[in-house]
Formats: sequence, C-alpha cells, structure tokens
Amino acid sequence: MHDINVDFFETAEDCPCDILIEGLPGVGLVGKLATEHMIEELGAEKIAEITSIYFPPQVILEDCGVARLPNNELYRYEDKKKKLRVMFLIGDFQSATPEGHYFLTETYLDIAKKFGVKRVYTLGGYGVGHLTDKARVIAAVNDEKLKPEVEKAGAEFTESEPGGGIIGAAGLLLGIGKRMDMEGICIMGETSGYLVDPRSATCVLSVLSKLTGIKVDTTKLQERAVEMEAFVNRVKGAEKTGSEEELNYIG
Amino acid sequence: MHDINVDFFETAEDCPCDILIEGLPGVGLVGKLATEHMIEELGAEKIAEITSIYFPPQVILEDCGVARLPNNELYRYEDKKKKLRVMFLIGDFQSATPEGHYFLTETYLDIAKKFGVKRVYTLGGYGVGHLTDKARVIAAVNDEKLKPEVEKAGAEFTESEPGGGIIGAAGLLLGIGKRMDMEGICIMGETSGYLVDPRSATCVLSVLSKLTGIKVDTTKLQERAVEMEAFVNRVKGAEKTGSEEELNYIG
Amino acid sequence: MHDINVDFFETAEDCPCDILIEGLPGVGLVGKLATEHMIEELGAEKIAEITSIYFPPQVILEDCGVARLPNNELYRYEDKKKKLRVMFLIGDFQSATPEGHYFLTETYLDIAKKFGVKRVYTLGGYGVGHLTDKARVIAAVNDEKLKPEVEKAGAEFTESEPGGGIIGAAGLLLGIGKRMDMEGICIMGETSGYLVDPRSATCVLSVLSKLTGIKVDTTKLQERAVEMEAFVNRVKGAEKTGSEEELNYIG
Amino acid sequence: MHDINVDFFETAEDCPCDILIEGLPGVGLVGKLATEHMIEELGAEKIAEITSIYFPPQVILEDCGVARLPNNELYRYEDKKKKLRVMFLIGDFQSATPEGHYFLTETYLDIAKKFGVKRVYTLGGYGVGHLTDKARVIAAVNDEKLKPEVEKAGAEFTESEPGGGIIGAAGLLLGIGKRMDMEGICIMGETSGYLVDPRSATCVLSVLSKLTGIKVDTTKLQERAVEMEAFVNRVKGAEKTGSEEELNYIG
Repeated sequence: MHDINVDFFETAEDCPCDILIEGLPGVGLVGKLATEHMIEELGAEKIAEITSIYFPPQVILEDCGVARLPNNELYRYEDKKKKLRVMFLIGDFQSATPEGHYFLTETYLDIAKKFGVKRVYTLGGYGVGHLTDKARVIAAVNDEKLKPEVEKAGAEFTESEPGGGIIGAAGLLLGIGKRMDMEGICIMGETSGYLVDPRSATCVLSVLSKLTGIKVDTTKLQERAVEMEAFVNRVKGAEKTGSEEELNYIG
Repeated sequence: MHDINVDFFETAEDCPCDILIEGLPGVGLVGKLATEHMIEELGAEKIAEITSIYFPPQVILEDCGVARLPNNELYRYEDKKKKLRVMFLIGDFQSATPEGHYFLTETYLDIAKKFGVKRVYTLGGYGVGHLTDKARVIAAVNDEKLKPEVEKAGAEFTESEPGGGIIGAAGLLLGIGKRMDMEGICIMGETSGYLVDPRSATCVLSVLSKLTGIKVDTTKLQERAVEMEAFVNRVKGAEKTGSEEELNYIG
Repeated sequence: MHDINVDFFETAEDCPCDILIEGLPGVGLVGKLATEHMIEELGAEKIAEITSIYFPPQVILEDCGVARLPNNELYRYEDKKKKLRVMFLIGDFQSATPEGHYFLTETYLDIAKKFGVKRVYTLGGYGVGHLTDKARVIAAVNDEKLKPEVEKAGAEFTESEPGGGIIGAAGLLLGIGKRMDMEGICIMGETSGYLVDPRSATCVLSVLSKLTGIKVDTTKLQERAVEMEAFVNRVKGAEKTGSEEELNYIG
Repeated sequence: MHDINVDFFETAEDCPCDILIEGLPGVGLVGKLATEHMIEELGAEKIAEITSIYFPPQVILEDCGVARLPNNELYRYEDKKKKLRVMFLIGDFQSATPEGHYFLTETYLDIAKKFGVKRVYTLGGYGVGHLTDKARVIAAVNDEKLKPEVEKAGAEFTESEPGGGIIGAAGLLLGIGKRMDMEGICIMGETSGYLVDPRSATCVLSVLSKLTGIKVDTTKLQERAVEMEAFVNRVKGAEKTGSEEELNYIG
C-alpha cells in the first residue's frame, strides 16, 4: 500500500474526459448531494477507487455489516448529444491532515490531466450561519476570464465572500489546477451550515447545468429539500417559545 | 531503529498459521480482555515483539520498576486436535497518529500473510453509552459471503451499528485485509463504553469459539465480570439519590 | 509539486541582493504592514512566489472571486544612490506545522544566500497585552557585535523581553541564518497584541530606515494609524461604563 | 540542515565516556536542575550542540537580546580519581512531536555508544499532585539485575509508581538503550508537579552520587530550595483564608 492508492477499473480504459466535477463532503453536504445526484440520474460508471493513509484510520460499514476502507471514487459519464465527457469525484472523507489535502488534490489533478480534462468544477456549500429562504449561488474561478460565463449561468462574484477563502479540495483543485493549466470554477450554494441542504444542492446544479449544458432531473433532490423543510418547520413550531436563533444550532 | 521494528523470537521459526486473532486496546478493553484470556488459557507462545515510533514516546513499567518500550506482541498456538494454528496480536497501545494505524496494520497483515494466515478475526467492544444487562454481540465482515457462518455463531449484523464505522486496527485489518485477499471478521461485544467489561469479553469469546472451534475455559473472565458487577452495584447503591444516568460516567 | 515550490519570475535573473527584509504575518501584523508599505512605496518588483504543503490547505480569494494558492513572495528593490539591493519576503501565512517553519526558513535562507544576501532583517510585533501610547522598539540579533549599531538606530535590548523567545520565521531566520554565516537583526515594535497596529509598524520602519539608510514616506501608514486610533477612541467612548481592561479584548 | 544536527566541538575529540547522565526539562525541572548543577560544580566541558526540526520553531534569547536556535547539549567531565568519564545531556526542550522523541533519543544513544557509554542515568521528577515535606526518590531500570545497587543507593522501587510509565527522553533512553545493550537507570524525585523543585533535585543528586561515586557540593541547590520554600510559606500565609488545596495550583 502506498500513501495514496488509485485502483482503476476496466471501465477506465480508453475513456478520455473533458471536465471534472468534484463533490467531496463539506459544508451542508451541498457539493456531495449535488454530485451524487448527477451520478445517479445520469447513470455514470465507476472507473476508480482511491484509498489513502490521509483518510481517517477506520472502515465504513455498508450493506448491513460489510466493511470497506474509506475511499474517494471517480465516475465517468459521456453525454453523446453534447459530446461532453465528464469525470466525477466523490467520496467518504476529505484528508484528515493539512498536507494530505495537497497530496490528494495533486493526485486527482494528475489523473484528470492524463484523461484529458481541461476544466474542473468544484461544488460546495457556503455557510452563512442562519437559515435562508432562497439559496444564492456564489462562485470563484482560477482565471479572471472565466467570470462572464459563470455570472451568465446565475452565480454571483462578491468582493467579500467567502471571507476566509475556500478550504479543502474545492479550493485546492482551483489553486493547484491553475498551476497545471486547467480552468477551475467553484460553485457554492448559500446554506445555513447547520443542516444537510438539498435545496442549496438543487440551486448549485441549476447553475452547473447552464455552464455544462448537462440537464438532470432534480425531482428527487427537491423532494428531499421539501422533507428537510418540513422537518425544520416542525422544529420551529415545537420551539415557538424559544427564539429563532436557537434553531441555528440544529444539525 | 526503523519506524516499525519487528523482532521475531526463535519460536517463530517454521510455524505457519491459519488465522489471526487481534485484541488490541479499545472500547471497554473487550477485545484485549478476550484475546489475553485466550493466550493465557491456551498457553500460546510469544513469537514476536513490535515496537514503533507510532506508539506513544514513553516506557511501560512492570515487575516493580523494570522499564520496557511499549509494544505490540504476536503469540502462536497450535490446536492439534482441530489442526488449527492461531496467531494472536495484542499490545499496550494502538497507534498514536492516524497514518500510524495504516502503517502498523499493513505490517501486521504482511507478517500474517507470510505465515500463511487466510482469515483475520478482530475482537472489540461496541459502546452504546449506557449500562446493559445482557451483552449482544454484533459483527462486521469484509466479504458478504462470510455473514451466514457468523450469524450462525450468534452475532448479529444490523443496518445501523456501529454508526461511525470501526475505528483503528479492528477496522483496518478488515479493510486492508480485503485488499490482500484475507477474510476478515470483526466481533464486537456491546458494552457501556465507560467500564472495563469482562462480561462483554466472555460473550465475544463465546461467538469466536463457535466460529473457530477452539474452546477456552472462561471461568476466570466470568469471575472478573462478577467482581465488576458487584462494584457497579455498590456504586449504584451509594448513588441512590442521583439519577441512573450519572452512573454512566463511571470509569 | 514538491513540498516547497519556488517559482522565480524573469525579473529574478541576474539580480544580486545585499540584505533580506522579512515581514510575514505575526503579532499585530506589525512586520507585514511595515514590509508591505516599503514594497509599495519603493515600487519593489516581485521576483518569486513560493507555495507549499506547509501552508494551510485552501485558496485565497482576490479580485472579487479569483482564487489562488496561499503563498509567500519575494520582491526586490535596488537603491541606486545607496548602492543597496534589497530582497523582501512577505506572504499570506507562516507554516501550519512546527517542522514546516524550519523547512520554509531554510528555503528562504538558501535563496538569499544564492543571491548574495549577507544580512537579514526580520520585522515583527511584540505583544504586551495592553494598549500603549508610544511604541517602544526592541530588538534581537544573532551576533553580539551587531548590538551597538542597532541601539544607535533607536531599538532597545532588554534582559527579559520577549520572555518566550521569538516564534516563527522572524526568529528562525536569525537562528538558522547564524549557522549559514548571515547576520540577523530582528526589530520588534511594541503593540497590544489585540489590534492591527500601523503605529507600531511606523516605529519599526523608523529604526530600519536608520539601519539601512533607506528612506520611505510613511504618511499612508501614519494615516492608517490615526484611523485605527480614532476607532479605538470611539470604542473607548462607547464603553465608558465598562472598565478599560475590557478594551483589551477588541480585535 | 538535517532533521537532527549534531555539531561536535573540538573538545569532543578523543574523549571516551563511561556513563551518560540525562537531565532534559520535565516535571518540576528536577532532572534539569540536578544535571545543570553537576555540570557547573564539576566544570564539565561542552562537547556538542544538537539542533532539530523536532524542537519548537523559535529562537531563545540570551545575553540580553542575542538569539540562538533551541538546542540540546552534551558536556563531558572526567573524574580522574574515580577514573570515571561522564557525558551529560541537557537542553532547552524535549521534542515537540511524539515521533521526534524516538528519533532524538536514538541519536543520543548512537552518540553515547560511539563514545563508549555502557550505562545511562536519566534524572527526573515524579509529580504527586500535592506539596510534600520530604522528597522520596523512586527509580526504574531497564534490567532487573540493576535493582539491588539502586536500592542500596537509597531509591525505592514500587509496584505502582509512576502509574502511567515514564514519558519522554527519561523513559525512552532506558527502553531504546536496552535494545542497544546499555544499562539504564531512571532516578525520579518526588515533587508536587506545580513548582520548580530544587529540594527534589538535591535528593536525586544524593542517590546519583552514591551510584556513581561522584560527589558534588549541593550548597547552591539547597539555598535555592530554601528560597523556594520561603516563597511557598509566604503564599501559604497570604492565602490563610483559602483552603490548602488552592495552593496546589501555584506555578
């Protein structure tokens, strides 16, 4: 076992890709929900599994008691009409150490480069610390020239958001990507930061769809959003005597 | 000194093994109690000591003031009737760093593989956060096909337990073991998580015995369990004025 | 990508330097403010960017949504009258790990040495824990023989300040610099430690100016100091009912 | 610069040693006080300085503003009457990381071995959590056969102290020393753990003196002990209204 193991499946053979879409776990699981939804709706095919000493030292249980190492996974989908070939990156965890983020991100970009990827989309949530009615979508790019098309697709660029930069893979894929001559666009859905947020994921997908031309049916995501909102409203009702602020600590 | 030192004893020569049983320290010391009890009852022989920079930087004192490096140890036992040869793994500590868990587990599996081990049993506790009257035993495997025999031996597989996966060697031996073509079965005794739990260790041994065919007399473990329960009852009596929940914080 | 990447610009070619002035982020941002101010006023030219796995795993956003890796930067300025060639070191962060500080500092000194640098000035703040009216400047050197000229320039050497030594690049550049035969002088402006302190940066620059002979107009820094003091006074007014101590926690 | 740098002085040439005495910083600074006192009283000569990325990333200030890297130092003393040659190990810090402790200890033992050292004495404090009138001295060894002479010199071996083993260099020098065929004896003075304790250091020296035959005048240490005790009594007087327990938190 190396520090980072990439196990390619047979499905990975001879399959160039044009873009990479990343949705690893982060604020409100917005990027993860959005990317997993696309993979499922489009029927993308798994092409690789990545395990690493940089992930937490544990196993994940699935299928009622079957253990596997935590991993990150690559999927692939070819939109024949649009002639667009997409690589997806999802997973259980991001790196457990600061340096690991750098090493893993580089590995992902090395693979992407080898498959021909020219542009990277990273999807995530932008935590604002309070419940919001309508999720704005904000963006960052690794090249000024990418801004017009992103704004046209409905995302905002603001001077001060997110204030602390973009942490983890969603940020580093843009930063290290630039060094490797890949365009990078990060699309962040506004979210409370306290709850898993399928509504915000839907908004992110809407912007991504305009940028890539790939349409996915978001009915299931919207249903999950409705369920989540019903849950929040029940809690709000139950907590009528408390202030609205308290609600922020749910999740 | 290397990052991980394996010092084999002469007893290690020419001694193939069929299975590995791991009982490093963890929740309720369930796995450690169970494995140490087996080693003692069966008179297993020490074949190796492992020291490492991944263990805490200290010495352990034993025999009234004699210091030694913290280590993990391998023992071996041959059940001539059952024609089963067993390697045991116990020790003072697990890794002090996340990456160390991966490196140490790999080392253990490399050794096991070289000795011919085909299957790994990892023993541990599953903390439920409250005192329990009767210890359920739950299990995880690294291959779906292993489930029937484990269920037959009395362990349960449940959809949601343990929720956070299995941390440390007990988990990684299954995860990395799978990659090295070794069967892996983790047997976890339900335990409060607040107390050393010989009762739970007895339950784990009972399941393991059915799986391996190796019988050990558990009288001594049961005596320790009775002592521990008497202690808990004394505390309960003394705390009659407090709520039962408070009891959870003992240990 | 290596653990530390140094990307030189064309401007770096054939440009020997005599001294290095360091102003990475630290207490009160005193060193950073002072060094950035010099770079701006003198029109120093960027000659290199340094990225590293030792910096936090994130991107910085600038120009309204354009992401870049966090970095440290080298600038160069030639004072033709004084025949003094200066290398500046500034940046977003210092190392995120203890060892990283050693590795990064060594890299900076290796570069400096190659460019011909004989002396290193490190600029910083010295936090005293309370607001001060007039910023004293204290100093440390890596060779006893440097003390007279530093005292003549207006900095004090005291037996007990700073008590805990000098943490990070400002300290290590002196310590490792000594091993590489480079003179090292650390100039620290007294500051509360709670607020960004342009006043203290002005005092540091005044001492540095006497030491190097390089004059910079500090009007802009002094304007920022006046703004900051007006802000502090407004807070003091608003908090008249509270004790002066509370003020210490601003920032 | 390597991870660990050992710079030998000319004084190190052709100077075999029989024993190593370690007194790095630890509980109550007992070992450090004892070892520094010996070096001073005996006029031992510095033979090496050790710097390392495993020490904290800072410089130490001495001589009123002169900075140097934190280090560990080796001294040497030859007792011509006793025909005993002693190497001393003291320093500013122990390792800042767990693995660093292992790497540094190995380096020290490699050097000691090369100089001919056959036995290592490590000196330290044993924190009991309350003020004590008379400092017991307890001990640990890395070989059962060393116990009689240590007991004869006035140190006790107890079944349960120190409960958590011996942390850091004082412990690892015994543990790794054993692996390198060096005898190891750790002498620990009982101390509160809250205060620098020259009284306990005197008691440790008394035992060490009987073991090595080296006599040092402890008048200065005893004077410091008297000063410290006067300080404690003043605090006790001032705190008459508070409970004695509160006193434990001094220092």
